[in-house]
Amino acid sequence: MKTIKIALIQMCVKEDKTANLEKAEKMVAEAARQGAKIVVLPEMFTTPYQNDFFPLYAEVCPGHTTDRMGQWAKKNEVCLIGGSIPEKENGKIFNTCFVFDQTGQMIGRHRKMHLFDIDVKGAIRFMESETLSPGGTVTVCDTPFGRIGVAICFDMRFPELMRLMVDAGAQMIFIPAAFNMTTGPAHWHMTARMRAVDNQVFFGVASPARDKNASYVAFGHSMLCDPWGRIVAEAGAQECIVFAKADLQKVEDIREQLPLLKARRKDVYTLKHVRMD
Amino acid sequence: MKTIKIALIQMCVKEDKTANLEKAEKMVAEAARQGAKIVVLPEMFTTPYQNDFFPLYAEVCPGHTTDRMGQWAKKNEVCLIGGSIPEKENGKIFNTCFVFDQTGQMIGRHRKMHLFDIDVKGAIRFMESETLSPGGTVTVCDTPFGRIGVAICFDMRFPELMRLMVDAGAQMIFIPAAFNMTTGPAHWHMTARMRAVDNQVFFGVASPARDKNASYVAFGHSMLCDPWGRIVAEAGAQECIVFAKADLQKVEDIREQLPLLKARRKDVYTLKHVRMD
Repeated sequence: MKTIKIALIQMCVKEDKTANLEKAEKMVAEAARQGAKIVVLPEMFTTPYQNDFFPLYAEVCPGHTTDRMGQWAKKNEVCLIGGSIPEKENGKIFNTCFVFDQTGQMIGRHRKMHLFDIDVKGAIRFMESETLSPGGTVTVCDTPFGRIGVAICFDMRFPELMRLMVDAGAQMIFIPAAFNMTTGPAHWHMTARMRAVDNQVFFGVASPARDKNASYVAFGHSMLCDPWGRIVAEAGAQECIVFAKADLQKVEDIREQLPLLKARRKDVYTLKHVRMD
Repeated sequence: MKTIKIALIQMCVKEDKTANLEKAEKMVAEAARQGAKIVVLPEMFTTPYQNDFFPLYAEVCPGHTTDRMGQWAKKNEVCLIGGSIPEKENGKIFNTCFVFDQTGQMIGRHRKMHLFDIDVKGAIRFMESETLSPGGTVTVCDTPFGRIGVAICFDMRFPELMRLMVDAGAQMIFIPAAFNMTTGPAHWHMTARMRAVDNQVFFGVASPARDKNASYVAFGHSMLCDPWGRIVAEAGAQECIVFAKADLQKVEDIREQLPLLKARRKDVYTLKHVRMD
């Protein structure tokens, strides 16, 4: 089966963790009801995107939220890219995405590798490193739908990491993410589209819905891009589920017709993964 | 002096080499007359972009065309990024950009490193490797306006090469290029803009003008992007000179505010230049 229906859950995240989990559960079920086989939740979907909330909402994993995500995946028979949650371990907190197959088994875990520390004068300041620690692993997961690369938000700013996922066999990359009202209009579309083109993959980004009353206002515009850089489907700012079909034959065709991956000059430059956590 | 006026010469290239050289000479002089300090010619500006022409128009360098380009740079007191020409050496032909400082001295040479071999069904087929050989050197040039990275057209498809120029100190990157009517509308703008954003540089692309009667129809749309990915100035399809100002303070500011270059996880991945020609 080469064509896969994908759902990107652009949910509105609030302060109430229980309500966030209930909403995510309902939206995953609705996505599955409409035929999605891969379902992607947004970054930090259990907690407001604020440094003062991350420690309060952090969980040891496996734990309550990962258990529930596993159940949602199993019950709905979907591959679930579980957005991200604040994860506690040995006194550190990570921004972590857990991935589950359609039997509910955890098949992947990505800890955000590039922390979002930004200070654009007069526009946006955010320092994830005030509360979070970074991961150090390139993450790909084997699913019945092919090998999937997973990273989180600011990670997609780094072409090196995207490349390493593709070198590890990814045909699709999914990024739970929350750009803001400065970086979103400036860079969101071009980054998602260009990573798809450069790496000749389907590239999906799932954002929280825009909430103008939030401390950190997410841009929204969850979308799936095909390997030619076309936007297959895209949300606006509001809460919704984006459905999009990915025809993996396109990955093969485009890699053949415009052989960017093959044409790399590996005799001139090398990109290497030098550390695993 | 942090703000530099740049001219991108979008000239219409014809079969007559002498006429092409005369036109380039006039357009460089006009660019200088209007205050440009860095002038960029397009890819293969002496010859139609066709494999059967490259061997016929190829020159040993230094030679006639490089001598003339040196004179143009000196006479007009500009830094000249000399587009590219087919260059002959030891029975091989390269697609080569020569760079001259404002005294007319040759300060750089880039041989296209990634040859353009593409076969998009029903749209465009071109195989540079039928006549050309690739270079293997990452090229940066020191100018009074800072360090400049230079590469050619298909080279810009490869994030690794762009990164290596920036690692070598480039604050501006110029790419003589000729996308076509398939790849141009699909990828030209996003590629130039994204390379600027990822690498936090000014990124200029100079194309031949569009000639619908040519065997290979260039897209045009020469443009300069700033390090935030904004298009500072852009041509349409027709012959023209694009003037744009680059304020290098922006490079420093954006590298500070959105510290993408610093935030790379060099402990996790390394990109290395492993060979020099």
